[in-house]
Amino acid sequence: MARWEGNARGRLEQAALALFEEQGYDRTTVAQIAQRANLTERSFYRWFTDKREVLFGGAQELGEQLVTAIGDVPEGTGALRTLLAAFATAPRVFRPHEFLLRRAAVIAANPPLQERELIKMATVSEEITAALLSRGFDRATARLATDIGLAVLRVTTERWVTEEHTDFAGFGEALTAGAAEVLAVVADGVPSAPAS
Amino acid sequence: MARWEGNARGRLEQAALALFEEQGYDRTTVAQIAQRANLTERSFYRWFTDKREVLFGGAQELGEQLVTAIGDVPEGTGALRTLLAAFATAPRVFRPHEFLLRRAAVIAANPPLQERELIKMATVSEEITAALLSRGFDRATARLATDIGLAVLRVTTERWVTEEHTDFAGFGEALTAGAAEVLAVVADGVPSAPAS
Repeated sequence: MARWEGNARGRLEQAALALFEEQGYDRTTVAQIAQRANLTERSFYRWFTDKREVLFGGAQELGEQLVTAIGDVPEGTGALRTLLAAFATAPRVFRPHEFLLRRAAVIAANPPLQERELIKMATVSEEITAALLSRGFDRATARLATDIGLAVLRVTTERWVTEEHTDFAGFGEALTAGAAEVLAVVADGVPSAPAS
Repeated sequence: MARWEGNARGRLEQAALALFEEQGYDRTTVAQIAQRANLTERSFYRWFTDKREVLFGGAQELGEQLVTAIGDVPEGTGALRTLLAAFATAPRVFRPHEFLLRRAAVIAANPPLQERELIKMATVSEEITAALLSRGFDRATARLATDIGLAVLRVTTERWVTEEHTDFAGFGEALTAGAAEVLAVVADGVPSAPAS
């Protein structure tokens, strides 16, 4: 991607977020976004199919990135460990934390966008489970590892973004710490000896 | 609820499911459902606001039931243990397993219904997290326990329904077994000593 093009996309994203924040998502048009970014509508459509894609354009990218990363983990690695190793590469497709924070606020203010976010994450979840199944894990293990792994990813990402880290060095260690937190929550909830 | 009324509701549910299966959800009308059940449309609207509610009517009930059950757990109980105790009461609002299986198949065949199901579960999830927060758990613990608890509930319910149990005696023990499975998945994924 040429520097100028990356810059155009970034300007469009910034313009869209500013307008979503100022006047609401529903009232914002593509024409306004392009104008605010000092670009043409035609430039906008080079990067995004519509205004919603400014917020959700990374979804397919994220799913593909995670499935590829799962494939790169050595065979024989446990299910959750496989996901944590793969998730450590997720920051490659993450946006700057300032973008993520503002994006989250815009989505939180708009129920249809919240629904879109749920559907996006459900799709990513299914892709991850399918990737684990294809590595030979049984269905229950693949589903549980996916649910747990995504819970760890979510809590770690939210913390990371809120703590205003300016890069993602150390994200893998943060994921491991998140998983240890999950282990503590689960261990506390399971009786040490099963009822007979 | 009088016996006759319960019966009318059950007949409407059976009629709706049969029509959804035979001709698809989209093509089925309330008039057809009522006719198939040998009841009037007016009877239908006594029980359901629309045909979608035949599939999703239990959602509010489920959320309320779980929040009440969380409130009944003794103070000082750990977060996940609280949820497992509360979830053991969930069968009170569950439908017969035959209804659940057919409902799941109808939803799986219809993407807008899948989205509705996601949104329903997200709402229940938020209610559960709020109930844990009000019991004094911190946000990360409440969110993680909710995600883990719902993963356990889902895998346990799916197995329960597929195994064709005709009642829910022993559901609490099945939940504990599901939680032990989660513990195994998590323990396998967390390094025994954190990287320093």
